[in-house]
Amino acid sequence: MSPIHFYFDFISPYGYFASLRVEELAARHGRRVDWRPMLLGVAVMKVMGLKPLLDTPLKGDYIRRDVLRHARRHGIQLGRDPNASVGNPLPAARAFYWVKRHAPGLEVPLAHALFHAFWAEGRDLSTPEAVAAIPLPGGLSSQELVIGAASDEAATLLRNAVAASIKAGIFGSPTIVVDGEPFWGADRLGEVDEWLALGGW
Amino acid sequence: MSPIHFYFDFISPYGYFASLRVEELAARHGRRVDWRPMLLGVAVMKVMGLKPLLDTPLKGDYIRRDVLRHARRHGIQLGRDPNASVGNPLPAARAFYWVKRHAPGLEVPLAHALFHAFWAEGRDLSTPEAVAAIPLPGGLSSQELVIGAASDEAATLLRNAVAASIKAGIFGSPTIVVDGEPFWGADRLGEVDEWLALGGW
Repeated sequence: MSPIHFYFDFISPYGYFASLRVEELAARHGRRVDWRPMLLGVAVMKVMGLKPLLDTPLKGDYIRRDVLRHARRHGIQLGRDPNASVGNPLPAARAFYWVKRHAPGLEVPLAHALFHAFWAEGRDLSTPEAVAAIPLPGGLSSQELVIGAASDEAATLLRNAVAASIKAGIFGSPTIVVDGEPFWGADRLGEVDEWLALGGW
Repeated sequence: MSPIHFYFDFISPYGYFASLRVEELAARHGRRVDWRPMLLGVAVMKVMGLKPLLDTPLKGDYIRRDVLRHARRHGIQLGRDPNASVGNPLPAARAFYWVKRHAPGLEVPLAHALFHAFWAEGRDLSTPEAVAAIPLPGGLSSQELVIGAASDEAATLLRNAVAASIKAGIFGSPTIVVDGEPFWGADRLGEVDEWLALGGW
């Protein structure tokens, strides 16, 4: 069966929450997960014409509260203040696509490591050097990753992935697409589960 | 125990979906529901600086799809095309607050009737006359309601309610507030249920 598509932004807390559950969910239905980091800022700012979530009056305050509430409820360690500045997701996302091309199979362990470093440990990931300095999955070289994440090739791979995500209508993190059917939000994982079990409705 | 606050906009499909379940949910925890219609457009446009949801590229398409999907899943009749123009919620909301003042106890049956007329039957509610022409709960006079919904008093009651909702940080429909804790979205009713059961976390 075709994999489910998992679109996310590394600096999205809801993307992080979903990353902790999506593989178990997919596996229960005999599916694999195709991880597709994107840049929410590009879609939100350039295509949708909206301001960043945390800068939006009323909603920003709610989101900060909701993120902490969700983490408490599910015992998820948060080493980052959701009130702090959101960070730059480009180096992490470029590293992901570079590894997917040059060390296929290691990009998903890397994604978990990046999410953990950023959200659980509160590490900075805003430069290729910072990305390469996190505990990497076995088989990945820090020296190669710092060069790869800074390469033009990685920039092009990410640019193409972001363009494809916008073409696919993706506007939020996480969005899970099951056989063409999109589900937006970490709070929709239960609905994805139902959709997979029932084969749609 | 204090009632839970149910903020919604009559022209919000997710507000309608929540209206079908919120009382049963609250009753299971020995709570009453304080219905608080507001005008999402005022918060969204004037305070948040955003464009209307359905006019937002990418997101608008998703929302239309999600509304139909939710209705199919839960067997909810939708007599209104979510692609159609959204309508004017002012007369319905003004009628609600006027009835709450002048025929207390009938405002919630009226709210159900308004939601049903708009969403299940696809009726127009954009004028006081249209609001008063729907099947009204027993005890409400159509002649009185059309005058009440068009009155300055009703306009003032609604204006005050909207101002209070924005002061309370409400930016989405539905939002349910339990003892000061806000939950945004019809897909969070399960979380409200948990919060009520556990007394928070």
